[in-house]
Amino acid sequence: MANSVSGDSVVDRVVRVIAAFPAGVTVLQLSELAERADLPLTTAHRLVRQLATHGLLETSPGGSVRLGLRLWELVNRNSPTLALRQAAMPFMEDIQHVLNQNVNLAVLDGWEALFVERLSRRGSVANRAQIAGRMAVHVSSAGLALMSHQPKHAQAEYLDQFADPAGKVSRDEVRAVLAEAANQGYAELAGVIDPDTWGIAVPVLDGQKRAVAAIGVVVPLREMRMQALVPALQTAARGIARRLAEGAG
Amino acid sequence: MANSVSGDSVVDRVVRVIAAFPAGVTVLQLSELAERADLPLTTAHRLVRQLATHGLLETSPGGSVRLGLRLWELVNRNSPTLALRQAAMPFMEDIQHVLNQNVNLAVLDGWEALFVERLSRRGSVANRAQIAGRMAVHVSSAGLALMSHQPKHAQAEYLDQFADPAGKVSRDEVRAVLAEAANQGYAELAGVIDPDTWGIAVPVLDGQKRAVAAIGVVVPLREMRMQALVPALQTAARGIARRLAEGAG
Repeated sequence: MANSVSGDSVVDRVVRVIAAFPAGVTVLQLSELAERADLPLTTAHRLVRQLATHGLLETSPGGSVRLGLRLWELVNRNSPTLALRQAAMPFMEDIQHVLNQNVNLAVLDGWEALFVERLSRRGSVANRAQIAGRMAVHVSSAGLALMSHQPKHAQAEYLDQFADPAGKVSRDEVRAVLAEAANQGYAELAGVIDPDTWGIAVPVLDGQKRAVAAIGVVVPLREMRMQALVPALQTAARGIARRLAEGAG
Repeated sequence: MANSVSGDSVVDRVVRVIAAFPAGVTVLQLSELAERADLPLTTAHRLVRQLATHGLLETSPGGSVRLGLRLWELVNRNSPTLALRQAAMPFMEDIQHVLNQNVNLAVLDGWEALFVERLSRRGSVANRAQIAGRMAVHVSSAGLALMSHQPKHAQAEYLDQFADPAGKVSRDEVRAVLAEAANQGYAELAGVIDPDTWGIAVPVLDGQKRAVAAIGVVVPLREMRMQALVPALQTAARGIARRLAEGAG
């Protein structure tokens, strides 16, 4: 089937064009887009024009390309994370109000925490967890809270392949941290990225006691009040889990 | 160029698959997806498989399809609305904190307000403005705030084509409402969708005094305090405009 073969490669190229934007970059020149998508300029030009016809990309007279408002709309109104974010948002607002700190919501994707929602307070400490940002499991309290509440075989698989690119943390240390987080029901991590902050996250558990999400805060070290933070987060996590189980949205 | 012709239609079909999900629907059965995308089942199946390989869609063993977390991540980390939302969020939180109401941020897309950010308060009145939701200009205070601060020719073009599908509002009434909103610097709208609520929105203006966004609140009628709401919103709108002009993000 000639069509299928040709079709395959067109789909690949469409994906490469959409995925060509590096994280946080909203505008690319066509030539840079072609290079990043590994496509000849003429091919990139044709694909961009076609996708722009449908509003999936937007182009400017100067030759710059950005993702289209229509694509943003399509993806966000039908987001795979919609139900989770809708269930979690009121509780995240409660946490933000009660604790007056940045609040994050993350899911596990591969060996990384993918942040799907975030509330940050003006004047609060820096919060590296951007929406749609990722952090490796072993450097984020959300990642540790998620991984420590996965089935044993998934944790074993994660540990088997673990190698710290920075060479700072050993597999045994990560294993011990995960075991501790599983035991105590929350994960804490001090100063891995910002030396003056502390991350604390708790899992949102489904009926099988598996983490489907993690809710956490990032607080300045000097304000650490673990006695207050953990129960508040655990209360919010139970509320989110209950809303999810009810199928609320 | 046979490739180009074939390529055109593959791009069309990819777009139709991604756009097949109705607003708020996160999961479709493959057969329903094929029908909504107007594609033969075999074609839909092949495209879904290809897109799933790249994580743009996700499939379940039961034959259900949803947008992929990877697509959500790509679109949100490079969102065309990223700079606006990042500039606006601290001010939206201020408004929510000070006024204790739902806060919306919208942009104009065609003749509709497209809501790009929203903060809703637990226990607050219903807020119809879903993120990535749309409302026609003449039934939303955000839409009126945006349209009333567009260039004259754009407003004329809008009014020329205006026809209320509900048959309740005449073109002259909309013209008058827009003129009033332009004069007073904000738009207000009572009870069009929910009879017990009132929407108030102000434009975020660029250097040419054109609205690039609108920030607004939805409040219960009994709590209407226009004297307090409008200055707070206008202050926030000026802050957002300044951040945008600084290129902050």
